[in-house]
Amino acid sequence: MKSFEFFRDLAIIIIAAKCFGMLARKLKAPQVVGEIIAGLIIGPNVLGIVSQNDFLVQMAELGVILLMFLAGLETNLQDLLKTGPIALLVACCGVFIPLLGGYLLYSGFHGFAGIGTDEFFKAVFIGVILTATSVSITVSTLRELGHLKGKVGTTILSAAVIDDVIGILVLTFVIGFKNPDVDPVNVVVSTVLFFLFCGGVGLVGYFLFRWMERRHPNEHRRRMPIYGLALCLLLSYAAEEYFGIADITGAYVAGIILCSIKSSDYIAEKMDISSYMLFGPIFFASIGLKTQVKGMTASLLVFSLAFVVVALLTKVVGCGFAAKICKFSNEESLKIGVGMMTRGEVALIVAQKGLSVGLMDPLLFTSVILLIIVSSIATPIILKVLYHKFPEKQPELPENVPVSQA
Amino acid sequence: MKSFEFFRDLAIIIIAAKCFGMLARKLKAPQVVGEIIAGLIIGPNVLGIVSQNDFLVQMAELGVILLMFLAGLETNLQDLLKTGPIALLVACCGVFIPLLGGYLLYSGFHGFAGIGTDEFFKAVFIGVILTATSVSITVSTLRELGHLKGKVGTTILSAAVIDDVIGILVLTFVIGFKNPDVDPVNVVVSTVLFFLFCGGVGLVGYFLFRWMERRHPNEHRRRMPIYGLALCLLLSYAAEEYFGIADITGAYVAGIILCSIKSSDYIAEKMDISSYMLFGPIFFASIGLKTQVKGMTASLLVFSLAFVVVALLTKVVGCGFAAKICKFSNEESLKIGVGMMTRGEVALIVAQKGLSVGLMDPLLFTSVILLIIVSSIATPIILKVLYHKFPEKQPELPENVPVSQA
Repeated sequence: MKSFEFFRDLAIIIIAAKCFGMLARKLKAPQVVGEIIAGLIIGPNVLGIVSQNDFLVQMAELGVILLMFLAGLETNLQDLLKTGPIALLVACCGVFIPLLGGYLLYSGFHGFAGIGTDEFFKAVFIGVILTATSVSITVSTLRELGHLKGKVGTTILSAAVIDDVIGILVLTFVIGFKNPDVDPVNVVVSTVLFFLFCGGVGLVGYFLFRWMERRHPNEHRRRMPIYGLALCLLLSYAAEEYFGIADITGAYVAGIILCSIKSSDYIAEKMDISSYMLFGPIFFASIGLKTQVKGMTASLLVFSLAFVVVALLTKVVGCGFAAKICKFSNEESLKIGVGMMTRGEVALIVAQKGLSVGLMDPLLFTSVILLIIVSSIATPIILKVLYHKFPEKQPELPENVPVSQA
Repeated sequence: MKSFEFFRDLAIIIIAAKCFGMLARKLKAPQVVGEIIAGLIIGPNVLGIVSQNDFLVQMAELGVILLMFLAGLETNLQDLLKTGPIALLVACCGVFIPLLGGYLLYSGFHGFAGIGTDEFFKAVFIGVILTATSVSITVSTLRELGHLKGKVGTTILSAAVIDDVIGILVLTFVIGFKNPDVDPVNVVVSTVLFFLFCGGVGLVGYFLFRWMERRHPNEHRRRMPIYGLALCLLLSYAAEEYFGIADITGAYVAGIILCSIKSSDYIAEKMDISSYMLFGPIFFASIGLKTQVKGMTASLLVFSLAFVVVALLTKVVGCGFAAKICKFSNEESLKIGVGMMTRGEVALIVAQKGLSVGLMDPLLFTSVILLIIVSSIATPIILKVLYHKFPEKQPELPENVPVSQA
């Protein structure tokens, strides 16, 4: 590839994402749906004018990091602490009900195998794939609707972070049975260490930023968003590199660390601009871009459809049930369940891991991709309908954005 | 490389660039000097904690594109047209005096060869390397000082664009003598076509943006900067791909096209944020990063030093002389000369071309890199001193930036 060819790809992506995003708004759907469809259309399945490459993958990765960092920055820390125990329960149910659902689905298609056999672990692994929530799309939708900071939004976000951690633990335990190199105890230890590490970095970071603010109390300085971005990048890196935790979790924690300093709105505003101008559209379009549907047979199609239905329903039922137990209203519980049902790149990564240790049939990749697309498109639409039909009791004002989002 | 490792590189680059940039400001030097030095220090020559890779190269390329687009957006079209003929003369002198200087330098070191011999063309080629101006550093410095929109700033920018075109023509003619595949006539034709193409795109683009503005006269819309960025990317791509013109020229033209619409300030503001947060620091640091000084001998060092001195002086003398003829004051002429003396990646690209057709000794790469570093660091410092000692007669107010730049 010539050094300047990526200019063309970027231009096509941002134009297509913006046009389809606006079209989606016209049709009363969230913009992200349009952006994902834009990726599908310009990608190899339809027009084939842009294809995935390393640069786009990395830009998309930056995009999802920025989204999670923004979500963290806009969190109300008190709400987060208040929703903490609820989120824990939501996350647990959101892991174990889909795990069970996946196991039953596979066993239903292929017969129930004895515990401990290869087939048994394969069935469990289908469940493991279903555990992974990717909330970036939900986050983006809730931001667009102005409900990210509400009680429901905060619960979804914290539950998704906990979900990520539990999902990693489950994955590691299941793989641990097949692969003697992975020690489940190590995973638990490194997860605990990660949160201790975040606590330490958080304390130091928080006081460092507060100190910088005190030095120039009456003006915003460019250095604040720059150092904020650096903190986000470093925690994302550290999460993956040293603790095996998803980078988006690190980025979200970085946002939480800075969410209660005075400049947090200023930092969020600057991040938001880079995010909606370039990185966000690339991330959402890349979901469509990397999709390549091939090798689809009738029986695989039936399994895939059942897989998608089970995946979506188990999350809605699991998380919604947990929310209901915690005294959320029926409507709020439904919103939480739907908000948790998106799957993204984490599901692909888990599937990839399963493939490498022989726990998954490569053909099932198509099912996972179908799940990602369906959940990515359905979740924002259903969420919008739900918020339209059942407005939040203490509706927040839409964020104070001085410009139209279109 | 693991998919998330670039987070670490980006974090280190933006932190180092910001810290050294602020240090440079403390020492009364422009921030860009600090950013370049940051790249040198974290790069392979000193600490070696970050090394050049494809992703960083592409991010840096986006950075320089954004800088040139911004420069175009902030241009006053009337000033540009007024300075046009002057800029043409400045550019011509800024190409031919360094060309002559390089020829004489090489011949002085290696003896004068008969016209048409290989040695003769090698000497001419050293001159060709010296023709290429890279104004991105000057642009950034002038913006920082608040003088980009002045008469001097506008002259430098337009001269640099013309310089780029003349430089390409000269390069093509010289290579044409060695390589029968390159037809100088084609190059002239495609250059003319490029400017016709820009005129066409410019007209269509201008009226399209004006039409979008008229539809929503009282609000700024996110789509404007997004489409603006897309135009910039497309023209950068088209310049290189279809006309063999540098991408930065395309980006600058895109800025010019939009500089007189109502939203131009709004677009520039949004671009500026992405530029100073991420892409700008990466671009400047990458100049330091890609530097690897090796194979330096005493005689090469002497030649390199002479090469750097000739390169800088011939631009100052050539462009300054032309400016003086056009009735600029002595101080202004000096500012223009100094502003034109930076060399950047274009010089490296030219050198690479020369190497591939056997017109240049690979050892001389070190001289070219030394020139890029020295000119990148010296130009901003000298410009700042000049503007401090000889303020512009009708000094513009610094741009209305609501935040401190540090």
